[in-house]
Amino acid sequence: MNDTGIRIADPAAPAEVLAIGTEVVIGRIQDTNSSWLAQRLTEAGARVERITAVADDPGLLENVWRDAICRRASLVLATGGLGPTPDDLTVEVAAAVAGVEVIQHPAVIASYRRRRELGESDPLPPHLYKMSAVPSGSTVFENGPGWAPGFAIRVDETVLACMPGPPSEMQWLWENALGSLAARWFGGRTESARVLVTMFESQVSPILGLVMDRHSNSYLKAYVALGSRHVGLPVDVIVRRESGGSALSDVMDTLRILVEGAGAEIRPWP
Amino acid sequence: MNDTGIRIADPAAPAEVLAIGTEVVIGRIQDTNSSWLAQRLTEAGARVERITAVADDPGLLENVWRDAICRRASLVLATGGLGPTPDDLTVEVAAAVAGVEVIQHPAVIASYRRRRELGESDPLPPHLYKMSAVPSGSTVFENGPGWAPGFAIRVDETVLACMPGPPSEMQWLWENALGSLAARWFGGRTESARVLVTMFESQVSPILGLVMDRHSNSYLKAYVALGSRHVGLPVDVIVRRESGGSALSDVMDTLRILVEGAGAEIRPWP
Repeated sequence: MNDTGIRIADPAAPAEVLAIGTEVVIGRIQDTNSSWLAQRLTEAGARVERITAVADDPGLLENVWRDAICRRASLVLATGGLGPTPDDLTVEVAAAVAGVEVIQHPAVIASYRRRRELGESDPLPPHLYKMSAVPSGSTVFENGPGWAPGFAIRVDETVLACMPGPPSEMQWLWENALGSLAARWFGGRTESARVLVTMFESQVSPILGLVMDRHSNSYLKAYVALGSRHVGLPVDVIVRRESGGSALSDVMDTLRILVEGAGAEIRPWP
Repeated sequence: MNDTGIRIADPAAPAEVLAIGTEVVIGRIQDTNSSWLAQRLTEAGARVERITAVADDPGLLENVWRDAICRRASLVLATGGLGPTPDDLTVEVAAAVAGVEVIQHPAVIASYRRRRELGESDPLPPHLYKMSAVPSGSTVFENGPGWAPGFAIRVDETVLACMPGPPSEMQWLWENALGSLAARWFGGRTESARVLVTMFESQVSPILGLVMDRHSNSYLKAYVALGSRHVGLPVDVIVRRESGGSALSDVMDTLRILVEGAGAEIRPWP
């Protein structure tokens, strides 16, 4: 709704992803948001080192954020806990961690009134009133397909960004707000490919190590558990394009030379 | 392979689940192990509060374990990092955290020799030699469908238990070793059900709160994001059967009375 000019202090510092909800940590709901966001952040150039899921417990959540701030994480990108129910505590805890008040956001309230065709003096339904609350001073992102807005607030060296838990709303907020911010913050320079290598893991592992030694901005990983259905072992090649670092095509060339030198070959991922 | 009598210090202390692997935190692989294990642990009576995924970085992994030990977690149940490749560091880091040596486990080596039909003096292939390493003094669990064994070791008030990352191997180890240990450690007393309630989230939320207030050993959660395909809102009811606490049937009765009192009804989950 407004870009207050929030910035990442150090784009090279580790980023973290956080899922908030007891239903996730007790295994009743598979968290797919965190993996989706970690992939988007990596593509945007962020160095994601950690994903955490915590129960709906304000003390626990506060500790998770404070620990990430102590580690000087660049970004903690969280989903969940922004709805209308009493166990939705993300706004209150984020405000406490940032040391600010919780306010009812005027632009969010105005948007609710427009979407519900309410007059200036009509009362908001209680669940919309709760969802119009954000930490004072945060940058607020309207939620197109849902109601609870996202927000971001800087605390010391770390940006805490919070999005709703329902995947369709989270993805909409990424595509319409957070994604372009992340591209600006991190530089958007990671490239990746998945291929099949006709070798066993114990044969290909030393080769992957050699490629990573030669190209310090690359990460290569073979997936034994994904391999059984394919002719060859699936291998991911991920290249962070730092200044002076190699491009994806250079890294792939090195891999190809070493694999073919060992009498094997690289095939496209189906 | 041998039960050294490892025990949980305090079954009521929070348990944690950990996924080890850069491929997980950068979003190239969706971690499904942690959710599966969190559900099994909850059913076994453990109080799971946190799931973490970390990159293959020994310093980071050591910090994650040390933090959990500081929090006096009952159990940290980890998957990943036990394979033959140089980025598989779980054994070395667990040994460092426990303050013990890494040893080549005699029973694991004997099992490898049997399965590969090797003689007493034949050398093990290097990748099997690496996977026969465990922290000295740990309880070791043979891996039926794979090669890297699991292990568990107690550090202060916390048991660190480690299983391989491939889901088929992890599930085999749970079903053949860790599952029965967890049932003994935690008492195996959590029951759960999922139902549909013909109400909106804002209507049912106060009712779920009333049920949780009345039955302090219960956790009820409505899932808006799962609801669109169904007639009614999906609601999970989870009851930890503490001594003197209510049973699942008592909690369901209270929920039914309140829902029907509001003119709505409970339907079976399809």
